[in-house]
Order: sequence, then structure tokens, then C-alpha cells
Amino acid sequence: MEEEQVNLRIPGPTPCPPEVLEAVARPMINHRGPQFAQLIERVVQHLREFYRTKSDVLILTASGSGGMEAAIVNTLSPGDKLLGISVGAFGDRFAAMAEAHGAEVVRLSYEWGRAAAPDDVRKALRENANVKAVLVTHNETSTGVTNPLAEIAAAAREFDVLFLVDAVSSLGAIPLETDAWGLDVVVTGSQKGWMVPPGLAFVSVSERAWRAYEAARMPRFYFDLGRHRDALAKGQTPWTPALSILFGLDVALAEMAREGLPAIFQHHARIAQMTRDGIKALGLELLADEPFASPTVTAVKVPEGVDEKALRRMMEEKFRVVLAGGQGQLAGKIFRIGHLGWVSEEDIRHTLGALENALPGLGFAVHARQAS
Amino acid sequence: MEEEQVNLRIPGPTPCPPEVLEAVARPMINHRGPQFAQLIERVVQHLREFYRTKSDVLILTASGSGGMEAAIVNTLSPGDKLLGISVGAFGDRFAAMAEAHGAEVVRLSYEWGRAAAPDDVRKALRENANVKAVLVTHNETSTGVTNPLAEIAAAAREFDVLFLVDAVSSLGAIPLETDAWGLDVVVTGSQKGWMVPPGLAFVSVSERAWRAYEAARMPRFYFDLGRHRDALAKGQTPWTPALSILFGLDVALAEMAREGLPAIFQHHARIAQMTRDGIKALGLELLADEPFASPTVTAVKVPEGVDEKALRRMMEEKFRVVLAGGQGQLAGKIFRIGHLGWVSEEDIRHTLGALENALPGLGFAVHARQAS
Repeated sequence: MEEEQVNLRIPGPTPCPPEVLEAVARPMINHRGPQFAQLIERVVQHLREFYRTKSDVLILTASGSGGMEAAIVNTLSPGDKLLGISVGAFGDRFAAMAEAHGAEVVRLSYEWGRAAAPDDVRKALRENANVKAVLVTHNETSTGVTNPLAEIAAAAREFDVLFLVDAVSSLGAIPLETDAWGLDVVVTGSQKGWMVPPGLAFVSVSERAWRAYEAARMPRFYFDLGRHRDALAKGQTPWTPALSILFGLDVALAEMAREGLPAIFQHHARIAQMTRDGIKALGLELLADEPFASPTVTAVKVPEGVDEKALRRMMEEKFRVVLAGGQGQLAGKIFRIGHLGWVSEEDIRHTLGALENALPGLGFAVHARQAS
Repeated sequence: MEEEQVNLRIPGPTPCPPEVLEAVARPMINHRGPQFAQLIERVVQHLREFYRTKSDVLILTASGSGGMEAAIVNTLSPGDKLLGISVGAFGDRFAAMAEAHGAEVVRLSYEWGRAAAPDDVRKALRENANVKAVLVTHNETSTGVTNPLAEIAAAAREFDVLFLVDAVSSLGAIPLETDAWGLDVVVTGSQKGWMVPPGLAFVSVSERAWRAYEAARMPRFYFDLGRHRDALAKGQTPWTPALSILFGLDVALAEMAREGLPAIFQHHARIAQMTRDGIKALGLELLADEPFASPTVTAVKVPEGVDEKALRRMMEEKFRVVLAGGQGQLAGKIFRIGHLGWVSEEDIRHTLGALENALPGLGFAVHARQAS
């Protein structure tokens, strides 16, 4: 347990509460037996509440990216035309996945740090006939931007398209209304807002998506959602699931249900505001367009002259704070602070204090002392 | 921990030693940091020793079935002709996966309980021109049969074919020589011989398989082994891995290395023989052709007049022994005893004793008392 004292401030995997890790360590059970059936039914019932959906929510043993691939291959056919909205690395990944499976993706891309605009989506769908589906990232982990999903979904719903959502780093931490907003497939991962280790992806499937599934011809087997739906009806998964992660999820979801979604959302919004205020107080600049700044991850521009690798190394070695670097075009240019799932104000105060102490030694004069 | 006392005798997930479960409960770390790089490099080095290979061994977050799909989609193209050897449910699944991805599979199927014969493979490859790859199950979990893999591989190596092996319930428990036998892709899963919870699949890739990868046109993204190879070169995985299971695997592999492969193989062979002897002593019949009976799982015919569900229920509720049922065409006709990974002679004695006590109440007169 030598790592217990680290302040893990990457945007997933997130720290897990001790009672979740205790559950993760439970002995194995028969994944074809009644105890497992009760477990998965309880977990799915909770997930449906957090998804705000009456539709199926299926559990895959995979990372969030596996869930995103499932969203694509279960609803589309090779040659289908899609609109791929991208505001960062994960929007690009969603589109690249669809292309790998033979889809033709029209890109609607934004400068990294900005959010997508509903009117642009409306315009793109008007200009591109026969778009079958829209791919969108709710919360872009690479830039710390939360897209206005309700408004983008409303724009898309004016057209006859499927609406596939990467909610990997948003669901459970940022408001999302699967049914009310008409979201057809919504994907998330266990290691983000859920306070659980990585290993499971969750995928909701609307009635419209199930109709698309019947016609979809992209090949699939492991990620075949119909097989998952049929197995779930018997209280099972089609393939042996990551039981340990399910044990932890069961405990985490019960805690989240006790806390309630409004309180969880408020907590994330407050922690994120505190993070941004603290960063600006140090004289650092945020990457994200602030009205769309993410409640779960904050991207900070590396100040001129500061070596990003040296900063993250010092933060980890001297202050035991683990930050994330930039991805893709932002590598070396930003660092990111994760604040989702099991995170406290003290975790953020500690992070800001460590930055305040680390930066001067790396050639950046911080503006102000943090309130202690 | 209320389930600690169960004797989990299914062929995976298998029980895990306490020190493995303790490792599984470790706090999260940065999967893009140096500590993770050391972890995955250590694990892969051990796996290569157990695989008996100098080739790459890649780690996927998925069940064994996900690994099998990776074997297919990374080496083949739609329309490729394959030879699918099947002696049970998992042989059928391997072929069905390839068909789902557009391959044409020539089936070489055997009655469930029998092993595949190398001469049949030779004959099938002679009669079917342009076979690109052979799919084979090393140990068929659904019937408790171990195919003579070395001899089948030798037969296949007389032809210019890829040789793809489902070693999910064999590797780490039954001798397998990846390089010496010329096996191109070998797949296994964490919850079988490795004494670790489910959630990870391991896939070895030979030089011949990497050449096939370059030409293979089946779509892939999450399971793209080239992405895994490139990430591994940086001490990473392309997508967030199931960290907890890797923590456990690290501990389990170190223990297995201390014990040594010969001792592990002997232990499994001895436990399996003890199981078969005990079953026959009770007057029960084995399903598998005995020279090919599996060292990791034993399938037992349900005696005439005994209700299989009632037997398994009584074994679990009264004796705390969890058995597996039959799959597919053998549902209700057999039960299966798993004895792989973390299993002791006492576990088997307890299982046999419970059967001896349970069966008379279900209408079957056992032949003899077990030695106590």
C-alpha cells in the first residue's frame, strides 16, 4: 500500500474509497450463479437511475474505449455517413474508430479548448444529407471542456439521426439526461465518476438504437450488445466479466445513491470552481473556454519557460501530487488536474499548494499565496 | 467476505490466494507513469517465460473471448478460408467469431468428449486448398478434453497456415511451447490458470502473425494488437487497463515463477488424476476420452435419473461446493469440476466427499466410500 499517500489528480483512474477497494478484494463467485444474478441486476438498476433512462444499460469488460467501439459497431454499417463532432483527442478517437470500421465521417472539429456549438451541428446536418449518426463527446478529457450536450442533442433531434455519446468522463459527475435529451447510446467507464477501478464500460441503448442494431452490418462478437442484452435477461454476461470491479461498483453505486445525484453534481461543480479559482490566483492560465470549463478535469497552460515534464516530476516526487500531461497536439503545452469521483476540497487545496511551492523553482513567479 | 468458505470448483473464475486479492485492492496509480511501466514490463517478462516464447505477449482488458477475437481480427481478412477445429463449445465459439468477421470456416468437428486427431487436421488441410489459418482449442473447457496440441501444430506446420490457439484454460497449468511448437497466436485469460480474477486476456504474436497483421483487413480498433505493441514499447497500454487485475497478476506470476512450471504442471496432473479416480470410485462416468482428459477441468456424466440442477443446488447449499453445469448440447447432461490455478488436494477430497453424501439423496447409489 506504499502508494496510498499519493494525491492522484489525473482524470481517471481516480482514487477509490477504502470500502470500494475492500469490495474489489472479495473472493471470486460463480458468474453463472444466483449470487451474480442479484449483483448485476442491482448494479444495472442503479446505473439506469444515474443514466436517467428506462432503456437497457449493459456492462462490458473493457475500458471506456471498448464501450465507444460497441456504440459504433452495434448501430452502423460500413459506408454509413456520420457527423463526428470533435473538440479534442477523444472526439478524434471516436471518429477514428468509426473510420476503422468503414464509416465515412464528416468532421466538425474545433480548436482544442473550445466547445461545440449547437448551431454548427444544425448547419452540418443540414448540409450533409444522409448522415446516419452523430458522434459527440460530452466531456472532453483532453482539454477540460464540457460540450453543451442538451443543446447539441436538441439540434440533432431535428434530424433523423442516431445520437451516440461518449460520456466516459462525465456520467455520474455532470448532469446528463439520457431519455429526456433523446440520447441513443451513452457510454461511460468505471474508473471515472464512479470511484471504481478501470475494467468495465457501461453502454445504454435506446429503442431507436436497438432498431438500428437489427440493421447494422459492422462485424461484432465480443462487443455484440444483443448478446449482452440476452445474457442480462438471465442475470449474466455473455463472457466472463471482471467480477472484482463489479463488486466494487456495487458498493460505490449504493453510496452514490445515498448521496443523491444533485449533491454529487454540486460537489463536482464546487470542486471544479475552486480548482479554476486557485489556478488563476496563481497567475496560471486555463485552456478551456471558461463557460464550458469541465466540472471533472481542468487543463492548465504550462507557463512560458517552464518544462512541463520537470513540473509534473517535481509535483510527484516532492509533493506526491500526480498530474496528467497533455495529449496529442497539447503534449508538453498543458497539464491537467482530475477532480472527479472520490475527490475532496482538501485534495485540491493540497494540489494548489504544491503548485505554488513547485513553480518558483521552475522559473515561474506565482502571483499570490493560497488562502491556507 | 461471506463467500470465503465456498469451495469454488468451476473452471474459472478460480479462487485467488489471499495475497493476490490483497494486491487487487491496491490504490490506483497513473497508468501513464513510471510505476505502471515497471509493472507491465515485469508482468510481460514473466508471461513470456510461461508462454515459452521470445515473441511479444500483449495484455488486453477483456475476457478470454476478447483475446480470441483479437487473434482473429489482427491476422485475417474477410473472405479468408479457415480450418476451425472444434471439440466443444469453445471450439464452436472460435469458429463463430471468425464467421462473424467474414471468414469462411471449414469445420473439423468432433463428438463432444473426444479429442482432435492430428491426421484429420493433415487430411483437412490437404483437401482444402487456400486455408489461411487453423483455429484450435488447446483445452476444451466445455468437455474437459485436452487436444494433443504439439502433434496438431506439427501437422499444421506441414502447410503454409497461421496457427491460432485458444489456450484460455490451459496456459500456465498444462505444458504449452509457443515457440517450439510454432504457435502463431496464443490466447489466455487471467481467471484461469493464473490465480487472478477475470478482466485481462493475454495474446502472444509470432513474427509470422505480425506479417499477417500487416495484410489483415478485418476492422479493429480496441483489439488492435499493433496499438498494444506500440504502447507496450512505452510501458503503457493504448487504453486504460484493468489496473487492479494487473496488481494481482504481478503477485501471482512472481509466486508461479518461484514454484516453477514443472511443479505447477505436475500439481495439475496429480489433482486431475485424483479427481478422475475419485469420480470413478463413486461409480460415476467421465465424459472425456480418458487419454485426453484435461488436467484443469473434469466433466462428469449426470447419472440416469438424477436431476443435474438439483445436484448442483444441493452441492452448493448443503456442502458449499460450487460446480459448473454443462454448456450447449451438454446442458443438464454433465456437471464439471474445475481444478486449475489455486487448488489443493483437500479441495478435491472435499468435493468428492460432498458428492458421495449428496448423490444418494438424489437417487444414485454411490459405489464406494472415499478414502478419508
